[in-house]
Amino acid sequence: MTAQGFLLLLELVGVFAFALDGALTAMRATHLDLFGVVTLGIVTAVGGGILRDVLLGELPPATFRTWYYLATATAGALAAFWGHRLLARMSRPILVFDTVGLSLFSVTGAQLAVDAGLGAGQAILLGGLTGVGGGTLRDVLVRRVPGILTGGLYALPALCGAAVAVLGPLLGLSSGVSAFAGGAVCALLRTGGVLRGWRAPRATLTAPEQLD
Amino acid sequence: MTAQGFLLLLELVGVFAFALDGALTAMRATHLDLFGVVTLGIVTAVGGGILRDVLLGELPPATFRTWYYLATATAGALAAFWGHRLLARMSRPILVFDTVGLSLFSVTGAQLAVDAGLGAGQAILLGGLTGVGGGTLRDVLVRRVPGILTGGLYALPALCGAAVAVLGPLLGLSSGVSAFAGGAVCALLRTGGVLRGWRAPRATLTAPEQLD
Amino acid sequence: MTAQGFLLLLELVGVFAFALDGALTAMRATHLDLFGVVTLGIVTAVGGGILRDVLLGELPPATFRTWYYLATATAGALAAFWGHRLLARMSRPILVFDTVGLSLFSVTGAQLAVDAGLGAGQAILLGGLTGVGGGTLRDVLVRRVPGILTGGLYALPALCGAAVAVLGPLLGLSSGVSAFAGGAVCALLRTGGVLRGWRAPRATLTAPEQLD
Repeated sequence: MTAQGFLLLLELVGVFAFALDGALTAMRATHLDLFGVVTLGIVTAVGGGILRDVLLGELPPATFRTWYYLATATAGALAAFWGHRLLARMSRPILVFDTVGLSLFSVTGAQLAVDAGLGAGQAILLGGLTGVGGGTLRDVLVRRVPGILTGGLYALPALCGAAVAVLGPLLGLSSGVSAFAGGAVCALLRTGGVLRGWRAPRATLTAPEQLD
Repeated sequence: MTAQGFLLLLELVGVFAFALDGALTAMRATHLDLFGVVTLGIVTAVGGGILRDVLLGELPPATFRTWYYLATATAGALAAFWGHRLLARMSRPILVFDTVGLSLFSVTGAQLAVDAGLGAGQAILLGGLTGVGGGTLRDVLVRRVPGILTGGLYALPALCGAAVAVLGPLLGLSSGVSAFAGGAVCALLRTGGVLRGWRAPRATLTAPEQLD
Repeated sequence: MTAQGFLLLLELVGVFAFALDGALTAMRATHLDLFGVVTLGIVTAVGGGILRDVLLGELPPATFRTWYYLATATAGALAAFWGHRLLARMSRPILVFDTVGLSLFSVTGAQLAVDAGLGAGQAILLGGLTGVGGGTLRDVLVRRVPGILTGGLYALPALCGAAVAVLGPLLGLSSGVSAFAGGAVCALLRTGGVLRGWRAPRATLTAPEQLD
């Protein structure tokens, strides 16, 4: 298997995991029919990559240029729809898949942004957006305040992973090593955040009315 | 009247109907002023086409390249704002217009995607998105869970119509016949769905908490 | 200081003000952590410009082509996060900044749309969208019905300012004078709207159920 093929395989694992996770979240949030669940699974899985490609002007987005991504996302969402009882006992493996997806999308999104000529800070932000964009779109559609805004460490691991992938080559590392290190940083922070309940600081607005 | 001119007329009928329907839905959902109602009417009418053109990289979107679309959408929204008492007695004709819009946008969206070089599956999805995109954006703005996720048969007719339009030419039909057949399929499924209350299957999450 | 440099400075003042205002609104609307507040501040500050550039096909958007905008937006959001007690006593200066941002973005958005070859009506609409787009995206993310749909005079000043900037040159004024006049019109209407509580007409739906 070539490096190219291995990367595509990893990407499809990430898409499948995001679709599973997105569909399950959608089923929990509100009463949806089959089409709603599949739609939200697809949106979660490919939304971040589509946002990335729209902002980079790479149109049509990679998602639409082959059938692999949409077919994989649909399969993940259908698996969630029909297998949710089974999946309810598998939150640990789903978290692992989801973390693979987040790490991979953040790192590849950041590297594509660098390749398109963006500066380091902008590339890091776009990498983070690639990682968290799909889940955020889904949350908007099911009327949840998006997890990135409230849910502890979700955006931060994505941004840190993207930062390592972008800054590594500037410090002399190869882009492959930087990508791998970025993915590892993202995965560790995310897993630590979930298992240990790490949180970012909050504003102490005891009396919000005061602000008006 | 040329075929080109007839198609434009049909499109503008669809835009007008979507704007009427969008503005009425907005007025029902929440208390809005004139600008809110007109904004939501326009979003409903042209949102799907804009999403399609952004994803195909056809920028600026067709909506912005002439004044016809925006003027028609504004007229439809104003008609809803000032004429809602009259329109309340006309739900049947509005449904007809709305179905024309849905059928037309889904079929033309899918054909434009094929012309842009997308594969069949992706073109069908993009056609469906063109049909339902505007209403979905409106629902997000007025904080409804979008109708495509909950509301019985709305996305399915759009996708079926797009599928007929895309697959027809692969089976040897002319693109004109395929488009017409696709539009008819969409319109029949949609009308049937509304009149008979057809629904897609739902997930049987009796105890959603169990999933966490 | 060159005219170019002065315009950039004004733009960055607008970005900073929008980020402050966006972050404060976010903190009032819901319980967010540091990343949520900064994210919403950035979205408010640069969202309108990104929407404009996506629709004009100017990709990657100006926001991502230099680090000035994102750095300024981040600084504004952090200032809101740490300084909200102080800012609570400064609603008047923030309104001034916010009005500068609204005026500037509406006028420059409209002029960029004209430069890209759009017709007058479409350019006015795109200018208005540039002005109100960021705040609207923020409101969607924190699940408020967007202010442009309910909140008195917010979209109207933006559209009027854009209209003056677009129509001025058609009437023989220089584009510099038109931009300045457009900005002044927007600022006056907005300030008047806030200080005097001007409102747009509402639909008189006493019995919304009647419409179904």
